[in-house]
Amino acid sequence: LNTPGSTTANRLVSEIGERGLIERIRQRLPAPPPELLVGPGDDAAVVQPERGALQILTTDAVVEGVHFDLRFSTPADVGYKALAVNVSDVAAMGGTPRLALLSLMLPDAFTVENVDHLLDGFLELGMASRLTLAGGNITRSPGPLIVDVTVAGSARPRKLLTRKGGGAGDALYVSGAIGAAAAGLGWLRVHGRTGTERPADPVLAECVDRHRRPSPRARLGALLGRTKAASACMDLSDGLADAVRQVAEASGTGACIHAFRLPVHPGALQWFSGAGMDPVEASVRGGDDYELLFAVPPRRKGRLRNVQRLLGNLGVAFIGELTDDASIALVRDGVASELPSGFVHF
Amino acid sequence: LNTPGSTTANRLVSEIGERGLIERIRQRLPAPPPELLVGPGDDAAVVQPERGALQILTTDAVVEGVHFDLRFSTPADVGYKALAVNVSDVAAMGGTPRLALLSLMLPDAFTVENVDHLLDGFLELGMASRLTLAGGNITRSPGPLIVDVTVAGSARPRKLLTRKGGGAGDALYVSGAIGAAAAGLGWLRVHGRTGTERPADPVLAECVDRHRRPSPRARLGALLGRTKAASACMDLSDGLADAVRQVAEASGTGACIHAFRLPVHPGALQWFSGAGMDPVEASVRGGDDYELLFAVPPRRKGRLRNVQRLLGNLGVAFIGELTDDASIALVRDGVASELPSGFVHF
Repeated sequence: LNTPGSTTANRLVSEIGERGLIERIRQRLPAPPPELLVGPGDDAAVVQPERGALQILTTDAVVEGVHFDLRFSTPADVGYKALAVNVSDVAAMGGTPRLALLSLMLPDAFTVENVDHLLDGFLELGMASRLTLAGGNITRSPGPLIVDVTVAGSARPRKLLTRKGGGAGDALYVSGAIGAAAAGLGWLRVHGRTGTERPADPVLAECVDRHRRPSPRARLGALLGRTKAASACMDLSDGLADAVRQVAEASGTGACIHAFRLPVHPGALQWFSGAGMDPVEASVRGGDDYELLFAVPPRRKGRLRNVQRLLGNLGVAFIGELTDDASIALVRDGVASELPSGFVHF
Repeated sequence: LNTPGSTTANRLVSEIGERGLIERIRQRLPAPPPELLVGPGDDAAVVQPERGALQILTTDAVVEGVHFDLRFSTPADVGYKALAVNVSDVAAMGGTPRLALLSLMLPDAFTVENVDHLLDGFLELGMASRLTLAGGNITRSPGPLIVDVTVAGSARPRKLLTRKGGGAGDALYVSGAIGAAAAGLGWLRVHGRTGTERPADPVLAECVDRHRRPSPRARLGALLGRTKAASACMDLSDGLADAVRQVAEASGTGACIHAFRLPVHPGALQWFSGAGMDPVEASVRGGDDYELLFAVPPRRKGRLRNVQRLLGNLGVAFIGELTDDASIALVRDGVASELPSGFVHF
């Protein structure tokens, strides 16, 4: 990808205007796939849908001052993350992302070069996810920078994963590690200035990277759907505690989580302990991990083993089970208590 | 539609939280159509696409302080307009809107009751357009109220209308009247306080209504696509002058518009003349009309007459033609000059 305008710097968006910006974005895009009949630049995008496939639609915004801070993340990180949170939603349904629409709300002081950087990050994940930027919208914001993304994905009929398919006795698993993004944000609140600071300690650095550029579990989600290994699935956008509650509630079950089984990220362990906080509680409540929580019925454990073989490096940890009572419990040192509540937006 | 919570008033969004709000919205929705397999409340919405149909995707946001002002419009108007601008984009492609995703960014001071009202307006147009609210997202805004909507629509293969299909010699038409929304906004800038003021003069009142609740030309767009009466089409979101330029540029033609043929709204004539402005220029430049501009090749005029018969009350006016030179001209009293430029966002 070439970045046009590398010869000039720091021009305001108002200097090239909306159409100039759209043209600049179009020039950056790789050749579209044949199913995209009309791409960016018309009233709307037009797609030839995949035959027989279901379509998955999701939209999620990242808002400056709520989901990101330009002292903690670069514009490229923001573009990456805005797409990642949507890809994660499609993965949590067992689907494969295909297309994205990008809706940018730009403050007057935002520069053209920062729009380029934002798009760098967006397209980096877009290419890695084999996803096409099909259209979008650009407007002024009298307040924060906002990047609102819509992703359309596909899934085979009867291969969908929703939150409500779980049953009492299903084992609960979570991918990767939890608490990393929250620990990274904690570090950035102390050290972030320009969006590029990074801890020397590699374990903590991983946490900061996770906050800036979460890795949506696209392959895991698609495999869990395709193989039907999972009965229910949800991503951890608002933390593990929130996800456990929502899957249990939607499935009409309770849940019991074992603290000692939780894959708390070593950087989270280090950061939260150092800050005098309980690392388990902080990691369970902390949002932005974008791991997947999923339920596996006992008779489908073989399928999960097959998925794990295909996954390579990404671990999945058994953390507890769905139960037939109404409580959402966290068992710690043999004592059960109510699972803490998740991340709250309002 | 019943409005829950009519017994209480003025609660902040933070008092019921994101999940409370989503539940409140879900309770308001009519029974979903069978093609919506998963609706609001999961990670994403899932749809069974229409067999053989193309899919049209568009996203457009309305931002407080840029596209609306709560002294000029009510929250219900804002919800209506946020959907209308997207329905208009689908109509301009010759499609039929099917589904919407609603992404709300709410300031801390916004009340639950105002979210209800916003949804009233959104659903009013949604029901009239036979469109299903399939999902969305709610988050805080540290700045303005923003309503970002994505609409997915459908069209038959080979029945699409883009901006680029026009040819030299095609006649240009515009639906309804132009300048009304800009005149209404002009009146509101003088008289707007609470979002509910309305002029006594019915002609000016129509302009204010048009600013608050534009009527997307969904039926006209679908008919122009289905019958292939038009060779190119675009909506007037950024004004007629902008639309003429974009259609001509995309089609590789020039254009010539006859001032005396322009269907300037009588309220715009009255308001702009009274303000000492040139009503033709103001109406040609003014955005937010959401009429359709379309090109009709000479041999397809019969098809257009059939469309007009089916339309009933909505007029379409012949305003000029696409030409084989490069200029975009406005002819007035026999003198041709450059068409003024359209509405500029930045």
